[in-house]
Amino acid sequence: MEQLKQKIREQGVVLSDQVLKVDAFLNHQIDPVLMQQIGREFARRFRDQRIDKIVTIEASGIAPALMTALELGVPVIFARKHRSLTLTDNLLSASVYSFTKQVESTVAISGSHLAAGDRVLVIDDFLANGQAALGLASIIRQAGAEIVGIGIVIEKSFQPGRQELEKRGYRVESLARIQALRDGQVSFL
Amino acid sequence: MEQLKQKIREQGVVLSDQVLKVDAFLNHQIDPVLMQQIGREFARRFRDQRIDKIVTIEASGIAPALMTALELGVPVIFARKHRSLTLTDNLLSASVYSFTKQVESTVAISGSHLAAGDRVLVIDDFLANGQAALGLASIIRQAGAEIVGIGIVIEKSFQPGRQELEKRGYRVESLARIQALRDGQVSFL
Repeated sequence: MEQLKQKIREQGVVLSDQVLKVDAFLNHQIDPVLMQQIGREFARRFRDQRIDKIVTIEASGIAPALMTALELGVPVIFARKHRSLTLTDNLLSASVYSFTKQVESTVAISGSHLAAGDRVLVIDDFLANGQAALGLASIIRQAGAEIVGIGIVIEKSFQPGRQELEKRGYRVESLARIQALRDGQVSFL
Repeated sequence: MEQLKQKIREQGVVLSDQVLKVDAFLNHQIDPVLMQQIGREFARRFRDQRIDKIVTIEASGIAPALMTALELGVPVIFARKHRSLTLTDNLLSASVYSFTKQVESTVAISGSHLAAGDRVLVIDDFLANGQAALGLASIIRQAGAEIVGIGIVIEKSFQPGRQELEKRGYRVESLARIQALRDGQVSFL
């Protein structure tokens, strides 16, 4: 997606050969017009899949997932990484290991909002090692629902996330695929 | 806002005389069409204020804030409650006490995205004791920016949040004002 790559070139900051900071438009400050374009692009790529629900993970997944949901006319559920006062009943959860932070955490969704047979699109901001997406996939399967695709805003293609997801049979669509972060420069696949 | 009140009546769950659960459309599952209507309503109420930026707080503030930002054509920044790998430079923060959870936590924004003189609209999902909004207001003032209004999706008017904000001179616009949660019923002001 050319507008997204352009934005990454202009406003992304390469913090190390592993970490790209996109706090200016995706992870902290959000550009709503770009998010709308991202939502339209995901909708275009997945419209044929007859999506019932979108599932994402707080906090940075919410914006692209919401815009996709608006385009497709379906609800979005964001999995919680942190305890919530009201998220109590019928809880489905999975463990997610973060290689960057080297911590294991739990992500959870209320099973009340996912029905068996639902056709679910997973949306997330980043794909690196694939752990978050696999955690969401596990929760969705626990509900008896079906994952019909995984939409990623920025894929770090030099990390194994895509392979991990594809070898389990998931279709992955990434809007920007990063080949390398080197010498402060982003190169795309 | 009538559609919102209708949704609260139909899908809100009164967990106690203090806690209303709206996980079905706002806090966990999100109804994107309702969020779009909410964004349009906030935009209508605050358009005359020449807003430069919207500030909200993760995670449940993001959806209504993003939709308002899209309508007004301005960026949105979400304050973080949790540490982030990339949120490191020029950090502005405030302590926020949660009466419900009885814990003190820190919310933070990167000062890189707020400029002195910016006219800022604060958006949040709930107003109860006003602590989150006051924390955001403190951060915005630290940046030398100006708070020109506070937009709230659901106000629990039986708690002191609105008074706390108004006595500091802030304009508060709430789309649904709840008078009481009693016997499992929601009554609006």
